[in-house]
Amino acid sequence: MQIKYPNGQKSKITQNETSQKKPKNLKKSHLGVSFEDAINESNKFYLENNRAVIYKKPTPIQIVKVEYPSRNKAKISEAYYKTPSTTDYNGIYRGKYIDFEAKSCHEKRFAFKNIYSHQIEHLRKIKEHGGISFLLIEFSIYNRVFIFPVESLLKYYELSLNGGEKSIPFEIFEREGYEVKIGFRPRLFYLDEIDTIYADFFNK
Amino acid sequence: MQIKYPNGQKSKITQNETSQKKPKNLKKSHLGVSFEDAINESNKFYLENNRAVIYKKPTPIQIVKVEYPSRNKAKISEAYYKTPSTTDYNGIYRGKYIDFEAKSCHEKRFAFKNIYSHQIEHLRKIKEHGGISFLLIEFSIYNRVFIFPVESLLKYYELSLNGGEKSIPFEIFEREGYEVKIGFRPRLFYLDEIDTIYADFFNK
Repeated sequence: MQIKYPNGQKSKITQNETSQKKPKNLKKSHLGVSFEDAINESNKFYLENNRAVIYKKPTPIQIVKVEYPSRNKAKISEAYYKTPSTTDYNGIYRGKYIDFEAKSCHEKRFAFKNIYSHQIEHLRKIKEHGGISFLLIEFSIYNRVFIFPVESLLKYYELSLNGGEKSIPFEIFEREGYEVKIGFRPRLFYLDEIDTIYADFFNK
Repeated sequence: MQIKYPNGQKSKITQNETSQKKPKNLKKSHLGVSFEDAINESNKFYLENNRAVIYKKPTPIQIVKVEYPSRNKAKISEAYYKTPSTTDYNGIYRGKYIDFEAKSCHEKRFAFKNIYSHQIEHLRKIKEHGGISFLLIEFSIYNRVFIFPVESLLKYYELSLNGGEKSIPFEIFEREGYEVKIGFRPRLFYLDEIDTIYADFFNK
């Protein structure tokens, strides 16, 4: 979940907004817990309240060696992290398939190198197949979380492939994203924003 | 995926149909590949043909120890298998959320001890939220594969909780399930059966 810092990619417009330095006193999140935990707790809350069934997919692991110290007990003694085929989260909400990638950004720009192109492609496919897909992004330095719809993500991604910016500045998320209310239960009221964004889609 | 043998659970009706012995020359599957591989290949085919976006979820692993033999290279040196929270497969098909558990059965009965109760509960929730959910089951000794809809699964599961049979005989899958055509590409034509079973649901 934690992302790397953009590699000094700067434009004239945004130069004074970006910083090469780490923000001081950088916490992983101002949510009280990590962004991932905040999402997982929210999904658990939604599940308990029977509002949605959304889970984080397990981290894909390449298992190389398994030992059996005793019968019926398998110990994995050599394994490696694998590149995920798809995104972090998926499930069902109001009868619709929902799918998103979650990113915690500690800078004032979100760089495309922090998301795999096949994940963006996956989000595009979900949209084409009639699902809801988006990027859920936390800007830890601002303590703000946004839903960034797949349409916007694709627009800037395609620009980046055609010589444009390799990152999206925070201001774009403010302008084109939908801010997620942060609270206690759930920590992230992200389904309320989904209701707003996809109101017409749900009523079809 | 491979399941254990039923623990001698027998009824008067089905006693002569069940066997405590392993079938001779037991192959993991007559599909040419394992049942899991057959499903994965089918999903890959459907994805390439842009018919559906369905993936197997990674196996959940509890990571205990990670070593860094070199920078940027993480080696997991102690980990254990975890109980999956949900089912094996999910995704989107014809705009609908689809979710199923896959089981390969090497006996003439499918015993409920081979599926977690929370997985059955999960399939029930998916149905209630407007998704498509089912058990995809291979009977390796017959070389036959069935979609067993969640409604049937729940019916027999509830009977089993109320003193009924703790397993479902093959004949019930023949009668209430939908047989999946086995071929080359895809190996399992399971979405064709979904089209049939859920024809009304898709047209709503």
